[in-house]
Amino acid sequence: MTGLQLSGERFRVVYDIVGSESSARRQAEEICVEQTVEFPPDLIENDVIRDRIFGQVESFEPLGREGGRWRASVSYAVEVVGAELTQLLNVVFGNTSLKPGIRVERLEPSPGVLAPFSGPRFGVAGLLSHLRVAGRPLLCTALKPLGLDARTLARLATAFARGGIDCIKDDHGLADQPLCRFSDRVAACADAVREENARSGRRCLYVPNVTASPLRAIERAYLAKEAGAGGLLVAPGLCGWDTMRALAEDPQLALPVICHPALLGSFHSDPRHGIAHGLLYGQLARLAGADATIFPSYGGRFSFTREECGELVRCATEPMDPIRPVLPVPAGGLTLDRVPELIEFYGTQVMLLVGGDLHRHGTSLEQGCRLFIDRVTQVCSAG
Amino acid sequence: MTGLQLSGERFRVVYDIVGSESSARRQAEEICVEQTVEFPPDLIENDVIRDRIFGQVESFEPLGREGGRWRASVSYAVEVVGAELTQLLNVVFGNTSLKPGIRVERLEPSPGVLAPFSGPRFGVAGLLSHLRVAGRPLLCTALKPLGLDARTLARLATAFARGGIDCIKDDHGLADQPLCRFSDRVAACADAVREENARSGRRCLYVPNVTASPLRAIERAYLAKEAGAGGLLVAPGLCGWDTMRALAEDPQLALPVICHPALLGSFHSDPRHGIAHGLLYGQLARLAGADATIFPSYGGRFSFTREECGELVRCATEPMDPIRPVLPVPAGGLTLDRVPELIEFYGTQVMLLVGGDLHRHGTSLEQGCRLFIDRVTQVCSAG
Repeated sequence: MTGLQLSGERFRVVYDIVGSESSARRQAEEICVEQTVEFPPDLIENDVIRDRIFGQVESFEPLGREGGRWRASVSYAVEVVGAELTQLLNVVFGNTSLKPGIRVERLEPSPGVLAPFSGPRFGVAGLLSHLRVAGRPLLCTALKPLGLDARTLARLATAFARGGIDCIKDDHGLADQPLCRFSDRVAACADAVREENARSGRRCLYVPNVTASPLRAIERAYLAKEAGAGGLLVAPGLCGWDTMRALAEDPQLALPVICHPALLGSFHSDPRHGIAHGLLYGQLARLAGADATIFPSYGGRFSFTREECGELVRCATEPMDPIRPVLPVPAGGLTLDRVPELIEFYGTQVMLLVGGDLHRHGTSLEQGCRLFIDRVTQVCSAG
Repeated sequence: MTGLQLSGERFRVVYDIVGSESSARRQAEEICVEQTVEFPPDLIENDVIRDRIFGQVESFEPLGREGGRWRASVSYAVEVVGAELTQLLNVVFGNTSLKPGIRVERLEPSPGVLAPFSGPRFGVAGLLSHLRVAGRPLLCTALKPLGLDARTLARLATAFARGGIDCIKDDHGLADQPLCRFSDRVAACADAVREENARSGRRCLYVPNVTASPLRAIERAYLAKEAGAGGLLVAPGLCGWDTMRALAEDPQLALPVICHPALLGSFHSDPRHGIAHGLLYGQLARLAGADATIFPSYGGRFSFTREECGELVRCATEPMDPIRPVLPVPAGGLTLDRVPELIEFYGTQVMLLVGGDLHRHGTSLEQGCRLFIDRVTQVCSAG
């Protein structure tokens, strides 16, 4: 065979491995093979493949003091990935996802790994300036429940916009059901929000859910853009990370993209297995172009811990040049009485997503929204 | 709002829930809401939404005699799904994937759920007759390792085809890296297999890996078809289920599609959470159009049990009219000495995927393949 051309550039992936020290070390060595050549090492005749295509364990250390858990950093040649997100996912965890007791904690990308990605078009700073908001969290809510017709959803959108919400997204369960077609819903809701913006001078965004097959998602995104939507909601667990990325990177669309976590929960439900919250909702969402990333906050009706949420926010926002940060969007049963605590924990560079609880305050939905913005403003001006 | 039009047709999803009886019952009720309206039930004013859009617990019973585990069957209106795979996945497990202790065991689709899907174009019978094989398992192997150039891979393909392999697939880690470009590899390997078929009169398939972003996957599939490839390898965990489906349903391509399990392992690594093997690799692979479904067999280097493999095969092959069965492809470190046991367990309507071990027998790779086909033929004629 001809000589292999390798640049020498390598990137790292951090794995946490459960087991005895010797078993965990063996697992780390197996990762190096499984994630690259997937071939018995003793049958490899080519030294360059063994020395440079194989992953390499760069460090291996105990995690915590109890023992039984180890952290291995494995490096891979950038050429093993090439320029595609699918093959990056495959190298990071493809076949190893089929083995128990291994969790990917973190991607430590090199410039060559990041080069093919545009990342968020707006990112945190872009989104805040696009919405002309500073010094406070953005406010988000969802149009629901499924079963309402377009006109009723549009009336809700008007009330939300009038009450001061910054970002009104479709519930991620609103697709293109016969109960209410995508095109009807988007036309009605985009009109409602545009009219309210014209009246108020504000820049409230209507963000329809375009999650669908790749071709339909693109079609719907264009339809949404034409109708005047202000962003796109996408659930990559349902439609694939590259579908979200195609929507985010499309220069004709140029709309903010909000990432929804549907179906992604299995990646982290077992603390000894899968993909850590920060890597999944932070790093991967950024690579795939999300400008905001929704996740179930600690203390809601899901099971994320404070630590997991903190790590997620860190991975969403820490420097990963040239990829912009993605705005964290804690959600999942948040209530207005938690606003001070949420701002204390998440800070102001965040979008707070409150759904059902807005309907429980004041004499109208609009009043519920006003209470939301008042509480947020109060906390932020006091701080 | 206008009146909701519902047909009354409902389908079922079976969930296994961990916990005390009262907690599991509450979880089942919460699934009915979370997977449909995702809205506080007490705030729903519309009776039709509450009575017919909500999921409904149709049965609830203990699993096994120890207690602590319960099986709930939940029905949903077909209109909640509409006609899209993404929204079907969302209703089955979208947000509930973010909660611990719940595993989806099975989809019990109604005709309206299946109507939008074409399913496998070939299926088990079609694939066997396409390859003109009867009475024995199909034999499959993989081109690897990553790092070899196109000419070397093509030489391997020639040896495999000459040795009697039915289906030569790319290793799923061969994408379009600078180490060996997709177009070079596919041209060289398709030529090699075509030449060997012309010589032997057999119908060996070369199946390149086209896993990539949706647009690139389609491009590569067309390039592969033009080069003379006999099928397409796709990893839906990396590129999305609908990307596999688009490839399978494309009438111009009309090639058998083989589903690879990369990155899907997290869905079942926790036995109390996620998506059961049979639903994932059997039912979902069928809905998304796979003609063959690769999974790590019990007894290999991965962790599937005999029971899980048996259930997977059942879900892959039992009637789901009009969706054809998908051919099970046990894999993951299988060795030639296990051929009798594998055929005893899986039967003959299966494709056996042996990788590295073919290189360990006889004086050449071709001889290793001959030994494989000889063993299989021997077991099947003895049986």
